[in-house]
Amino acid sequence: MAEDHVDVLIVGAGPAGLMLATWLAKCGVKARIVDKRGTKIFNGQADGLQCRTLEILDSFGIGHRAWRESNHMLEICLWNPDSNGVIHRSSRLPDTIPGISRFQQVVLHQGRIERFFLDAINEFSSGGVAVERGVLPTSLEIDRTCVEDPEAYPITVNLRHLSEEDATPKQSSTMSNGISAQDGLFRSNLMADDTADMLKTSELNQKANTTETIKAKYMVGADGAHSWVRKEIGLKLKGESTDYIWGVLDIVPITDFPDIRSRCAVHSANSGSIMVIPRENKLVRLYIQLTTTSKIQGQDSRTDRSWITPKVILESAQRILSPYKLDYRKLDWWTAYQIGQRVGSSFGVHDRVFLAGDAVHTHSPKAGQGMNVSMQDAYNLGWKLSSVIKGHSNRSILKTYEFERKAIAHALIEFDHKFSRLFSGRPAKDIMDEEGISMDEFRDAFQKGNLFASGIAVDYGRSLIVTKPVAENGASEATPATTSTPVTGIQDLAPGLKVGQRIPSVKVLNQSDARPWHLQELLPSNGTWRLLVVPGDVSQPGQKSRLEKLCGQLSNPESFLRRFTPNTARYDSVIEVITIHGAPRQSVDVFDFPEVLRPFHDVDGWDYEKIFVDDQSYHEGHGEFYKTFNIRRDEGCLVILRPDQYISYVGKLDDYESADRFFSEFMLPQNNLTLPNV
Amino acid sequence: MAEDHVDVLIVGAGPAGLMLATWLAKCGVKARIVDKRGTKIFNGQADGLQCRTLEILDSFGIGHRAWRESNHMLEICLWNPDSNGVIHRSSRLPDTIPGISRFQQVVLHQGRIERFFLDAINEFSSGGVAVERGVLPTSLEIDRTCVEDPEAYPITVNLRHLSEEDATPKQSSTMSNGISAQDGLFRSNLMADDTADMLKTSELNQKANTTETIKAKYMVGADGAHSWVRKEIGLKLKGESTDYIWGVLDIVPITDFPDIRSRCAVHSANSGSIMVIPRENKLVRLYIQLTTTSKIQGQDSRTDRSWITPKVILESAQRILSPYKLDYRKLDWWTAYQIGQRVGSSFGVHDRVFLAGDAVHTHSPKAGQGMNVSMQDAYNLGWKLSSVIKGHSNRSILKTYEFERKAIAHALIEFDHKFSRLFSGRPAKDIMDEEGISMDEFRDAFQKGNLFASGIAVDYGRSLIVTKPVAENGASEATPATTSTPVTGIQDLAPGLKVGQRIPSVKVLNQSDARPWHLQELLPSNGTWRLLVVPGDVSQPGQKSRLEKLCGQLSNPESFLRRFTPNTARYDSVIEVITIHGAPRQSVDVFDFPEVLRPFHDVDGWDYEKIFVDDQSYHEGHGEFYKTFNIRRDEGCLVILRPDQYISYVGKLDDYESADRFFSEFMLPQNNLTLPNV
Repeated sequence: MAEDHVDVLIVGAGPAGLMLATWLAKCGVKARIVDKRGTKIFNGQADGLQCRTLEILDSFGIGHRAWRESNHMLEICLWNPDSNGVIHRSSRLPDTIPGISRFQQVVLHQGRIERFFLDAINEFSSGGVAVERGVLPTSLEIDRTCVEDPEAYPITVNLRHLSEEDATPKQSSTMSNGISAQDGLFRSNLMADDTADMLKTSELNQKANTTETIKAKYMVGADGAHSWVRKEIGLKLKGESTDYIWGVLDIVPITDFPDIRSRCAVHSANSGSIMVIPRENKLVRLYIQLTTTSKIQGQDSRTDRSWITPKVILESAQRILSPYKLDYRKLDWWTAYQIGQRVGSSFGVHDRVFLAGDAVHTHSPKAGQGMNVSMQDAYNLGWKLSSVIKGHSNRSILKTYEFERKAIAHALIEFDHKFSRLFSGRPAKDIMDEEGISMDEFRDAFQKGNLFASGIAVDYGRSLIVTKPVAENGASEATPATTSTPVTGIQDLAPGLKVGQRIPSVKVLNQSDARPWHLQELLPSNGTWRLLVVPGDVSQPGQKSRLEKLCGQLSNPESFLRRFTPNTARYDSVIEVITIHGAPRQSVDVFDFPEVLRPFHDVDGWDYEKIFVDDQSYHEGHGEFYKTFNIRRDEGCLVILRPDQYISYVGKLDDYESADRFFSEFMLPQNNLTLPNV
Repeated sequence: MAEDHVDVLIVGAGPAGLMLATWLAKCGVKARIVDKRGTKIFNGQADGLQCRTLEILDSFGIGHRAWRESNHMLEICLWNPDSNGVIHRSSRLPDTIPGISRFQQVVLHQGRIERFFLDAINEFSSGGVAVERGVLPTSLEIDRTCVEDPEAYPITVNLRHLSEEDATPKQSSTMSNGISAQDGLFRSNLMADDTADMLKTSELNQKANTTETIKAKYMVGADGAHSWVRKEIGLKLKGESTDYIWGVLDIVPITDFPDIRSRCAVHSANSGSIMVIPRENKLVRLYIQLTTTSKIQGQDSRTDRSWITPKVILESAQRILSPYKLDYRKLDWWTAYQIGQRVGSSFGVHDRVFLAGDAVHTHSPKAGQGMNVSMQDAYNLGWKLSSVIKGHSNRSILKTYEFERKAIAHALIEFDHKFSRLFSGRPAKDIMDEEGISMDEFRDAFQKGNLFASGIAVDYGRSLIVTKPVAENGASEATPATTSTPVTGIQDLAPGLKVGQRIPSVKVLNQSDARPWHLQELLPSNGTWRLLVVPGDVSQPGQKSRLEKLCGQLSNPESFLRRFTPNTARYDSVIEVITIHGAPRQSVDVFDFPEVLRPFHDVDGWDYEKIFVDDQSYHEGHGEFYKTFNIRRDEGCLVILRPDQYISYVGKLDDYESADRFFSEFMLPQNNLTLPNV
């Protein structure tokens, strides 16, 4: 039997698996990614992309593709019954809170997002990594004796390669208004898992007889709500499901409803609710409530779903939207689902096998969160795995994955739980109607939910890579690693750059050519940490001398820049130094800055892409970096950014020691230097 | 012998030929494009892309690719000798005049731009059109008896297909600092034309024996300075060449010159001048003066170029930049050229064979204009050819090609003539030094040249498709077509939208979903004319009723919208109606506007992509369309835009008659309607 050694085996090639594969390919880690499905794109499967997700896609060089092709959602309209029970627009809200990101929420077919990832994986791996479709893992063994050995391959997985026929999910074609449409029920939680069936079929199928054994250092289950990996490692999701059943139609609507190109939440008086999600290519997705709180005629919808058809869903929609008319000639896709929220008690075992995305948390799709949180799980994990596998970091940072993402998963299902119930409930007729839902309460929840839903509010807790102060009330005791002398910076030096959150973006100018860049554009996801040197106004002698003191230490052959970077690697491959100064651009040039801030390369000369300035641009205004983040030009600061753009540390400009101690906690010396005692 | 019929045969697949092929593919016209060269991309061949060129590329959906990959040039630094004869930075200027475009000038490898065009051609023609390389035309005949018959194929061309070896230009490899680099001398004007040699070789070569005959309605020679098409139709370029010889180096510089990443014009006291053009991938292009006004040692450089080597060019550069150091380890490409300016007396014959780009005007590359003006020639011609070939317009509009582009070519060589001499001259030592060049005069010329160089200042003269008033001084008498009752609009209704110029762009919001779009993004190059309905504040009853009056006439079955659009075509395929109103967005919805402004489609429903509003956006500010272009909200206007975004007409909102007469001048009725007398 064939045997292969890989650093990481990824099971599942949906958005979470592909995000992880993209990360690993970018970092040059040897990975394989398999998926039991034989086809990669289905109609439907659209989802909102939060602004944070777009920032992340952009960090891999594919954000602009999503931004161009997607439908941009700018406005939310809330509709509910007036005093006569007729629906009317009660308020308009911006869909993305203005100012929180350079992107706004958009909607795009999941197949396109997967295409962008596949292109990126192909480019980053120079064609070396491709998704293997129609491949099912059949057994998993973990050798517990060597899980703490960084060089070991403790995981053994057998894979079976399916025939194309076996790997194609069963979809039913529906003729509707003369045009056939495929349903998406095979992915709905109304359907049972088909993995066992697929496996059984393939065993019986003579065509599918190739199997192989994989030895892996790490394994990630991104294999969806029915996760095989999760079952193999013996973890369960905990939570509940409701009796709310919703239908989904992707149609080109023909309607006199005036807000059909806005995101709308419509509560009818007695016929249930609709959410309108305008999509690309004139499509609109409608989430349509099919039942209220009682099961239809006592049937268990999980076993009998035959009553759910596009016609039934459309008729529900027509009742809810009345007196407006709704019809369609073009149905692209449809499905139905039952609302519920579940989350895993643990996100993996031994810091060797991890779960990500729907494999470890499920909820209702209407919140537009599923794909985003799943991708962000993988985004959190990818650089940590790479860093450990490449020998740059010790295994301690892996513990932060569950610590950071479990908190997000709980927040997600809490949000979804509350929101789903508010949305599925009947609107209150008046203030005395206690069984009804208050529309004011719904609007407030919607607005608050919007910040959560943007992905921008994520705030990771204290750990060895997030140097928040130890909380007095003990709230952060879940920190996965500590040392006797924890590094703590001084948040007040940059109140707008919050430790634990992703760094916000404003425009800064390249010192050498005056080109404006969004700060986040300088932070591509390539696995490097960043030391952001923010020296303030370097035309002031005091700031200049503090900067020179810092640079003297950074240039030292024993500095953390040198110790943790292999001698054979580029100077910016492990920790990149980026300077954003606050003197007028035309008052200085790059040669006024110490060479460690603009290193020399034998062929390329000095590096002109490391020194930036907060100044007025010729064509794109003033980014106001110092003002926006409340950093004093006569004080400055030093910021450490994780490879995923989250802020690890804010401290004094010339506090070299804290930065050195920070990295020394988990980074591994690379060279045979005589090291100081660390 | 094989014979093929095509609408258009394009000779030459450089930027001009590819731009034309892109246009024709987009419009669905049957074209072939051949090029004598066997390979498509050479090192070097970079050029600046003006902001107008980026607008044009964006109108074909490829502007963002150029914008992302290119180096952006923001700042110009002028250096000249101080009182001690040592060079110093005397001023800094913005490279693109702020506010004239949403793009700024950039630099990108010509091969990438050609790649974008090839991808667009492939996409637009669904793979039906591909550049045929290594194909040479060998004879051209024009049947003069049928040149005015729109259905005729008066052009007969024989083509010879070369072997790959024959089609590859001879380049010499130069070893320099251990790295070999290819030269670009085969395209330099220091070299003789090699077409005859290629043909002769191929005749002798047994491998290359396929020939074919093409019957074409139209033919375009975009075959460069040595244009075979130009020679066949008996046209000559007129002008002069100078003795100024310049070298070009594309290097990754290693230098302490602080402005190496800015565009610089450096005049040394006695060693000549350099222009610095920072490029993508750390490259910098240096244009380096090799001789002043006398030929080197009496040699004729056209016959003996052996003295020109990278070493000689670098040494010149080092002398000019002294006391700064300049060296390199990486040489990407180099060439040399002699400055001269020539332009064709005519741009074609019989309005059947046309010349574009270098085939009809040549000048020095330093102005960064060549590729831009060449592409813009083709951009001017493409939609006119398509419109005539598809039977939408009569042949009269073809005369405007030479009329409009010859004026540009003359302005170009005048600019280049003046600029080259100012740049090649020795700086004046003081005010008494009459032989020297005044550096103040140079800076002024540079700044004025910048507006010209942007491509934004292009202002086409009066013709049947540019309804400027007849000039009193007779300056516009060269108008290629007139009628007894010429249409003239009222420019004062929109002083910021100048008839004859390309429409400037500001952001407007889609009425239906609040999404901001740059106005130019609504005007993709697809061959359609646009009627811009600018009704002002439609919440005012007066404006609303004027709009309704106009729409009543537009909806009439005999209106120009209907007459000139084939019954089988989409409602917006010949003339698209776009509305930009000035009432508050939330005060109206699309159903408040007459249906002709948001037409109904059986499958797609109402069109939500035609009605826009000048209002505040949620995230991207206020475009201030009415204010910027000085249009009164209580007056409005009607604007006619050509398919190339140039403004044909500005008139009264409810002056349906003038618009009808405008289109009736050259458009052909499509349907068997009973027409009014037109």
